[in-house]
Amino acid sequence: MQNYRITIQYVGASYSGWQIQDGKATIQGELERAIAEATGEVAAVVGSGRTDAGVSAIGQVANFFLQKSWQPQKLVYAINAHLPADISVLQAEVVSPDFNARFCAKTKTYEYYFYMSNVRQPLLDRFALKTRLLNILAMQEACKYLVGEHDYTSFVARNSGKNNFVRTIYDAKIVQIKDNLYKFVVCGNGFLYNMVRIIVGTLLEIGENKHSPQHMADVIAAKSRPLAGKTVPSIGLFMKQVDYTTQ
Amino acid sequence: MQNYRITIQYVGASYSGWQIQDGKATIQGELERAIAEATGEVAAVVGSGRTDAGVSAIGQVANFFLQKSWQPQKLVYAINAHLPADISVLQAEVVSPDFNARFCAKTKTYEYYFYMSNVRQPLLDRFALKTRLLNILAMQEACKYLVGEHDYTSFVARNSGKNNFVRTIYDAKIVQIKDNLYKFVVCGNGFLYNMVRIIVGTLLEIGENKHSPQHMADVIAAKSRPLAGKTVPSIGLFMKQVDYTTQ
Repeated sequence: MQNYRITIQYVGASYSGWQIQDGKATIQGELERAIAEATGEVAAVVGSGRTDAGVSAIGQVANFFLQKSWQPQKLVYAINAHLPADISVLQAEVVSPDFNARFCAKTKTYEYYFYMSNVRQPLLDRFALKTRLLNILAMQEACKYLVGEHDYTSFVARNSGKNNFVRTIYDAKIVQIKDNLYKFVVCGNGFLYNMVRIIVGTLLEIGENKHSPQHMADVIAAKSRPLAGKTVPSIGLFMKQVDYTTQ
Repeated sequence: MQNYRITIQYVGASYSGWQIQDGKATIQGELERAIAEATGEVAAVVGSGRTDAGVSAIGQVANFFLQKSWQPQKLVYAINAHLPADISVLQAEVVSPDFNARFCAKTKTYEYYFYMSNVRQPLLDRFALKTRLLNILAMQEACKYLVGEHDYTSFVARNSGKNNFVRTIYDAKIVQIKDNLYKFVVCGNGFLYNMVRIIVGTLLEIGENKHSPQHMADVIAAKSRPLAGKTVPSIGLFMKQVDYTTQ
C-alpha cells in the first residue's frame, strides 16, 4: 500500500461541502468516485478538515491509500480526467504510511473576501461579500483579540455540548487586496463549524462602528453565540492552505 | 433632455456581447430594458464600443438621454434594481449634451488574464486562460512591437474590406499578478473585432518559443490574418476602462 497526499482546489458553489452525504454532491464524494474510476481501486479520502457547503478551497489537503504504485504526476492527471471542472488535484506525492491529512495538520489558513461599495460589483460578487464602508482600523484592532488560545464557543453554529471549543489562533488580520477589496486572513490549529464566518460577521459589526474593537474580547469571554455577529455567506470563504509543520 | 454618462461592470459569460441582437441576451439590451422599467422612458444606450460575446467589463462607459432630471446616485439605484446580478451600474453623472460615449472615447484599456500551469485551477478558470509554461520575457519584448500607429489587419477576425484597420496602441505589456497568474494589458485608441484576443494568441506562440519576439513585427507588417496566432477564448478578456481625455 502506498499513501498519497494530494492538494486539491475547488469552487464550492455547487457542492454541499466536503463530507460525503447521501444523495448530495460533495467534494469528498467526487474525489472518491474519480479515484475509483481512474485507478480501479476504492479508497477512502481523508481531508484535513471539512469545508461547509458553498465554501471553496485554494489548497485543501487530503490523503488516501492505493495498492498500486503510481508516479505522482500521472496519478494527478488520471484523477483530474474524471473530476468535474470545478474540482482539480493540483499536486500529489507519496508520503509515509503514518501521514494522516486530518490528524497531522498543524495549522489551517482561511481567507474571507469582502468589498466595500454602495453598488454591486458583479465581478467581485463571484468571490466576495459586498459590505458598506467599514472602519478597517477598528477591525484590525479587533483582530488582535482573536489571537491566542481561547474557548471559541461564541463562534460555534451548533453547540452539541460534546465538543471542546478551545482552539489556538496564531494570526488574524485584514489585508487590502486592491482599492475597496479586502480579505480577512486567519491562521489557527483548527476551526469549528462556521467559526470563520461568525468571526467575520462579528468583525463587520465592529467595522460598522456598532461596537468598539474591545467587543471582540468581550464576545470571546462571554462564550455565548448570541453576542457574536451573523454568519456571513459562504461565497467569500476560502480554505487557503494547510500546514503540516509546526509554526 | 439630460445626458447621463454611466460606468457599467458586467460578467459577460451569459451574454451575446454588448450590442442588441434579436432574440439574444445582450448587455445593451438589458440596460435599455432596465432603464425603461426604472424611468418609464425609452432611451438608446450608446456604449464606448462593443464587447464580444462572453467578454466581461470592469468599467465599460455608455451614455443616454432622459427627459426627466434624476439625481445621479438615485438613477444608479433605480436602474440596478432592474438589472440581473451579472450587470451593474457603478456610477452615473450628468454630462454635456455633446458627450457621446463612442465618439468621444480617447483610449480604451483591455486586460487578458492567463495562468501557467500543468493542471487546471478551477478558481482561476473562472476568469483566466490556462497556458503551459511561457517565456514571459520574450512576450514582454514582443509587446514593444505592438506600440505605435499600425495597420492591424493581421489581427482582424473578418476582413470586410470596408474598414480602416489603422489604430494606435499606446501601451502593451505583461504584468505578473501573483505566482503563476499574469495579465496582458493593452491601451489604444480603438480595437478591431477580436483584435485583443488574436494579439494574445500571437503572444502565446512567442511565449511558447515557436517564434522570436521579432515575429510580432513581422505579423503586423504582413497584414495577413493567417500569420497571427489563434483567437484565444473570451473568458480571460476584460474591458478595463475607457478614458475621455487625451493621453
